[in-house]
Amino acid sequence: MSSSPLAQVPPVRKVAVFGGTHGNELSGVHLVKHWQQEGATEVQRPGLVAKPFVANPRAVEKCCRYVDCDLNRAFEPVNLGKALVESAPYEVRRAQEINREFGPKGTPEAYDLIFDLHNTTANMGATLVLENSRDDFTLQMCSYIKEALAPEDCRVFLIEHPHLKYATTRSIAKHPVGVEVGPQPHGVLRADILEKMRRIVRHGLDFIEMFNAGKTFPPCTVEAYRIVDRMDYPRGKNDEITALIHPNLQDNDWQPLHPGDPIFLTMEGETIPYAGDTTVYPTFVNEAAYYEKRQAFVTTVKETLRARGLRVFQK
Amino acid sequence: MSSSPLAQVPPVRKVAVFGGTHGNELSGVHLVKHWQQEGATEVQRPGLVAKPFVANPRAVEKCCRYVDCDLNRAFEPVNLGKALVESAPYEVRRAQEINREFGPKGTPEAYDLIFDLHNTTANMGATLVLENSRDDFTLQMCSYIKEALAPEDCRVFLIEHPHLKYATTRSIAKHPVGVEVGPQPHGVLRADILEKMRRIVRHGLDFIEMFNAGKTFPPCTVEAYRIVDRMDYPRGKNDEITALIHPNLQDNDWQPLHPGDPIFLTMEGETIPYAGDTTVYPTFVNEAAYYEKRQAFVTTVKETLRARGLRVFQK
Repeated sequence: MSSSPLAQVPPVRKVAVFGGTHGNELSGVHLVKHWQQEGATEVQRPGLVAKPFVANPRAVEKCCRYVDCDLNRAFEPVNLGKALVESAPYEVRRAQEINREFGPKGTPEAYDLIFDLHNTTANMGATLVLENSRDDFTLQMCSYIKEALAPEDCRVFLIEHPHLKYATTRSIAKHPVGVEVGPQPHGVLRADILEKMRRIVRHGLDFIEMFNAGKTFPPCTVEAYRIVDRMDYPRGKNDEITALIHPNLQDNDWQPLHPGDPIFLTMEGETIPYAGDTTVYPTFVNEAAYYEKRQAFVTTVKETLRARGLRVFQK
Repeated sequence: MSSSPLAQVPPVRKVAVFGGTHGNELSGVHLVKHWQQEGATEVQRPGLVAKPFVANPRAVEKCCRYVDCDLNRAFEPVNLGKALVESAPYEVRRAQEINREFGPKGTPEAYDLIFDLHNTTANMGATLVLENSRDDFTLQMCSYIKEALAPEDCRVFLIEHPHLKYATTRSIAKHPVGVEVGPQPHGVLRADILEKMRRIVRHGLDFIEMFNAGKTFPPCTVEAYRIVDRMDYPRGKNDEITALIHPNLQDNDWQPLHPGDPIFLTMEGETIPYAGDTTVYPTFVNEAAYYEKRQAFVTTVKETLRARGLRVFQK
């Protein structure tokens, strides 16, 4: 007998691929529209149905992040359950529609897995965003995708945190998977970034197909970056930013940041060092959408996550 | 006697530096606000007054390119002269305000020179955008700035063209100078891009100071890229883009593009070659703001512009 028992997990049959949760992150928008038009043949696999879906069509139409409020923060159970008036923010109403179609969140009827496709202006490369460090299925899938993409890097970013975790669109699925690829300016389609995202989704679907078909996956470990804190820009009167990301930090997502390393540069040329007392790994460095969220970058720590061996549980 | 007579040009006393003609091109917005707050000491020079100015404050507030229509296309004489109703597009009303303060366009009262600060998502580096190939003063200034920045590249982009030239904000000045620096995602401030823009403005002001003080500049030549054509993305039904900028062209602004070179890549992996019959130099490759203008890139040809020797003409 193996020392760690096998995780037996129900099959993953209902899969969705969301693009346009943020309407100006164009790789996912373009891929999802493409798959909708060509009959989704590229994303179908034996034993599952994969539905490509534009999450925020009004924001896509306007090529902006959102119309009234950030859809990717709108999936709090309290939002999803409340009776709405016509004047409710568009994204709150849209979240309820999405929850009815792909959820309800937290119920057996919910979709098994949602890939939610995002872009960032930060130099993060290919990143899988996880919400739960104990989901053996998703960890095994991340491990598979990482190996399939090697030698190219694919990081795992874990947003599990007492108060920094937020209520994502994909969180209505049993296995929520964020796919974040950058750097790409919002409102732009780069062929290299689109191709990277496309490969991640294809490898993920390959994994699900093998899993559903009965393949056993041995225990594995996954190196992950767990969110620790958020850092805002220095600000002056009127809340205006008074310093920019330092050139040493710019484009260096996932690289170690030691106490005393430069993080900001003022307009007068003064360097502001990192005041933390341990080494961290910054990411989402200088993401356009996070200026309004008062976030210059997030800090993470490296952690090794362990997944049990995995096999499908057939009722 | 010299073979080419000296151009004797009136002094350049009234200078403005515009940021935020497009509200999400943040280097100029940030520099101009900084200069406004610190009393514009960095941009003052003996013999001239330089006024830092936010051209489109509502678009800056919303961090978008424009509110109703593109301010940088709104300075047609017919727009500037017509009586407006309250419901006129914001930018048309704003153009009239700007024209009253810094123009009127085409009159002796107009500002002598406007630096209009822009960013692009394209990999254009530092670029000076000129509207007139026969403006000795501006050509001499470009030559000076290029030398001051060397060995770093600073290109001169000439938009003089029978029908592709457009009615820019800066066109109300006697000497309009566009400063375009990239690549930078819209809505993002990069320290390296901001510094490059800042140096261009400082060198430009240094030149004006020397010119006003009576220095004689010998004849010079300036290598420029003259706009020839605009290329749209391939589009299918509903006007959706069906191919992306090819990786060989992406980030290769100002590099020669030969007949038959790849320019687009379809979602099926098919390469679309350049169908022109001469070598051109593409620029504004994959600029976010130009998707809606149906422009994937512009083509240019290299040209050597000649400026006469220059000296200030004192009445």
